[in-house]
Amino acid sequence: MRIVTISREFGSGGRELGKRMADLLGVAYYDKEIIAAIAKDSELDEGYVSEMMDRGLPGSFPITIGRSFTYPAYLQQNTTRILVAQHKIVKELAAGGDCVMMGQCANIILQDHHPLNIFVYADMDSKIKRCRERAPEDENLTDSEMKKKMRQIDAGRASRHDLLSNLKWGARENYHLCVNTSGLDIKVLAPHATQYAKFWLGSLPTNQEES
Amino acid sequence: MRIVTISREFGSGGRELGKRMADLLGVAYYDKEIIAAIAKDSELDEGYVSEMMDRGLPGSFPITIGRSFTYPAYLQQNTTRILVAQHKIVKELAAGGDCVMMGQCANIILQDHHPLNIFVYADMDSKIKRCRERAPEDENLTDSEMKKKMRQIDAGRASRHDLLSNLKWGARENYHLCVNTSGLDIKVLAPHATQYAKFWLGSLPTNQEES
Repeated sequence: MRIVTISREFGSGGRELGKRMADLLGVAYYDKEIIAAIAKDSELDEGYVSEMMDRGLPGSFPITIGRSFTYPAYLQQNTTRILVAQHKIVKELAAGGDCVMMGQCANIILQDHHPLNIFVYADMDSKIKRCRERAPEDENLTDSEMKKKMRQIDAGRASRHDLLSNLKWGARENYHLCVNTSGLDIKVLAPHATQYAKFWLGSLPTNQEES
Repeated sequence: MRIVTISREFGSGGRELGKRMADLLGVAYYDKEIIAAIAKDSELDEGYVSEMMDRGLPGSFPITIGRSFTYPAYLQQNTTRILVAQHKIVKELAAGGDCVMMGQCANIILQDHHPLNIFVYADMDSKIKRCRERAPEDENLTDSEMKKKMRQIDAGRASRHDLLSNLKWGARENYHLCVNTSGLDIKVLAPHATQYAKFWLGSLPTNQEES
């Protein structure tokens, strides 16, 4: 089985790259539908799950009750339900065959499948430019507000990732390729990243293949 | 002008990758000859310069005299002479035309030339395996001794790099591509990395071209 996982900084163009790579590889692409499936499986509202995922699952945001730091019980329960569902859904989708999986800690959840793990990032100017090009018309964030939003989303991604692993989100040693998209056209980059993926996936030693 | 700089962890195969990329790109390759040129220019012994470069230039290894931390004056002078010569030589070589430059903080020294900066790394098992394959016959290091040697050399590289810049050696944001060579055959990897380099160097916006 050949799986590519994409982790990315918000605004880096990682989602577009992943989608284009899936098209070029001719394999399935899983992204937002994973959230819908997690919501269904965990019997939680999709919007709620999406927001929980975006803001980071509680585990790093304790609230204070009296002198002790703790989390409300329902949040802990929901976190557990989402994590359990996330593992189940990501594994089920991967079992369906070759695919590109966007986010969702798939690099950790699927490690037994030896996926190619790619991290996509860019400098702040490039990320702001990309976000402005894609922002809804009614979004009028200043650069400073946009940077804050990006940092919050990336912090959420990092906290979800680091809940599942002692590997740090974004640290190069946890990925096979880290691609800086600053100043690059994702459409032009995609065939090159795809070529690399084909090479890498074809280079797996036989003893790393799962049965 | 088209320049590729390679920074790498010891044992990651970065040197072999850089050499092969230069051959495939049909451009000059600069590596150990830089040390010889620095030695000549700074009027210091080549072996001494090489060792200073490997161990990290003083700046992070103060000695204690009385109650104050300091460096012997001659070491400070030699460090300055080496750094000045390194800047001069690296810039002179780059002025000669397209090339692949191995180490030597070329990613920092040549930043006005907008080089493609690649960082090459690998997991510890792969690095030990590669070092064993290339070690001189009379080198009989245990795994633990080999790891220590690797960490020392990488720490030296990091300290030299971080002397010249507030960017951290090995931090992905300072490179355009970070390649994990674990389990890969460098000979098979090289054409793919070269293809990426051609794409990236061809994608530079016109306004980034130097005159």
